Amino acid sequence: MKYDDPKKVRAMIRKGRWRKPTAGLAPGYAQANLVVLPQRYAFDFLLFCQRNPGPCPLLEVLEPGRFTTVFLSSEADIRTDLPLYNIYRKGKLEETVPGIKGLWQEDFVTFLIGCSFSFEEALIRERVPVRHIEEERNVPMYSTNIPCNTAGIFRGTLVVSMRPVPADRIVPAVRITSRYAAVHGSPVHIGDPAAIGIRDIKRPDFGEAVTIKKDEVPLFWACGVTPQVAVMNAKPDICITHAPGHMFITDILNEELANR
Amino acid sequence: MKYDDPKKVRAMIRKGRWRKPTAGLAPGYAQANLVVLPQRYAFDFLLFCQRNPGPCPLLEVLEPGRFTTVFLSSEADIRTDLPLYNIYRKGKLEETVPGIKGLWQEDFVTFLIGCSFSFEEALIRERVPVRHIEEERNVPMYSTNIPCNTAGIFRGTLVVSMRPVPADRIVPAVRITSRYAAVHGSPVHIGDPAAIGIRDIKRPDFGEAVTIKKDEVPLFWACGVTPQVAVMNAKPDICITHAPGHMFITDILNEELANR
Repeated sequence: MKYDDPKKVRAMIRKGRWRKPTAGLAPGYAQANLVVLPQRYAFDFLLFCQRNPGPCPLLEVLEPGRFTTVFLSSEADIRTDLPLYNIYRKGKLEETVPGIKGLWQEDFVTFLIGCSFSFEEALIRERVPVRHIEEERNVPMYSTNIPCNTAGIFRGTLVVSMRPVPADRIVPAVRITSRYAAVHGSPVHIGDPAAIGIRDIKRPDFGEAVTIKKDEVPLFWACGVTPQVAVMNAKPDICITHAPGHMFITDILNEELANR
Repeated sequence: MKYDDPKKVRAMIRKGRWRKPTAGLAPGYAQANLVVLPQRYAFDFLLFCQRNPGPCPLLEVLEPGRFTTVFLSSEADIRTDLPLYNIYRKGKLEETVPGIKGLWQEDFVTFLIGCSFSFEEALIRERVPVRHIEEERNVPMYSTNIPCNTAGIFRGTLVVSMRPVPADRIVPAVRITSRYAAVHGSPVHIGDPAAIGIRDIKRPDFGEAVTIKKDEVPLFWACGVTPQVAVMNAKPDICITHAPGHMFITDILNEELANR
């Protein structure tokens, strides 16, 4: 089995042969966060994404009831092609399931949101270390005191991911990620965690802590967990997301998401 | 009366003292296209904009019923602050009015869309001629055969604006407008009009023809008339737009719309 072709990887997932995180699968291809909501919440959530493009870079939105993508792949089914899904009711995680065909409703609207995996390849290629990949951990993520722009029922503060960068690689890290506006773009903050309301850098709110070396500065990027938190705050009757790390694999190259 | 301050210009318009096009008012500040639709069409139209960011660069979307902006100005009222409005019913222009307070409905959703005025200043600054400004005409616009991405009831082909550029200024023209992704961005086509379905460059479908000199090449940019045509095609019960050239003047500098 080759893990290089996104179509083959999705087929493998669809058949139930891969129930693990998708990091490292189909290298070079963009992976996306999933949010599924009933139609009555869809305008507000689309507006939340429009008003907060940093943490919510939309890659594709499907019409109500539609479960096949058009732009990110011509042959994907979002009900079966992710390894694990989280089902939330009234803002509470109720179960984690390998497929959502049985739960599908005609009024479901699907949102696929870009993910920072896309710029990490570019960082590594230009010798900016990505510590959580080196240490084989989930990226550390933190709640901040930076308010998002509210839209209807959706509100919350920004969640950021953190990557420690040696002082002499900060400029390349900013320059490289600035090119990826479609997948979170440039950092939102460099340096002092307290300045954005992070109390203890060693205790992330999501993901896992990573080593920060003596000559390194923490860089913070807007994170796709932000819209998930906004959805949880809004307590919709039902919401389906990917399980953390178990993403939707697209047929779009990361490079295609760089500024054109 | 100074025409430099967007707040003062809007106040003048609000009092009925300016019923002319807004080109040249509050120089340096972004102007926006207006589309107002009842809420039942709002998700589809927002999705159309999300799927067609070139012709439909959203600058701000207001919640249903809301008529004051938040991001583009802290004190504007979109019912009174444009010089002239077009009222369409079932896709047909019914009247042109100086204000829409009397027509306002609680379920109206307002969309403000970026406009190429924003990059024309930058072109002129870097010695790329902008012919329709030199000749004091409305920019020439053409229907093309390039399909937009359909969203719900909204569909159509791309409308482009055209600016003739001397051969040795094409590269700067592309480079400069590429920075303005939030207001149409780089050209969609350079050269042969027939290649994108334009039959006669001397007869634009909207606006006015301009002189193309012997050493000049036509450059085509996605145009904000595209979403208006998509709305007309969809024949909604009611739709309100700015009258051509009679735009909404924002408190945002054009420079703030360049890539950051």
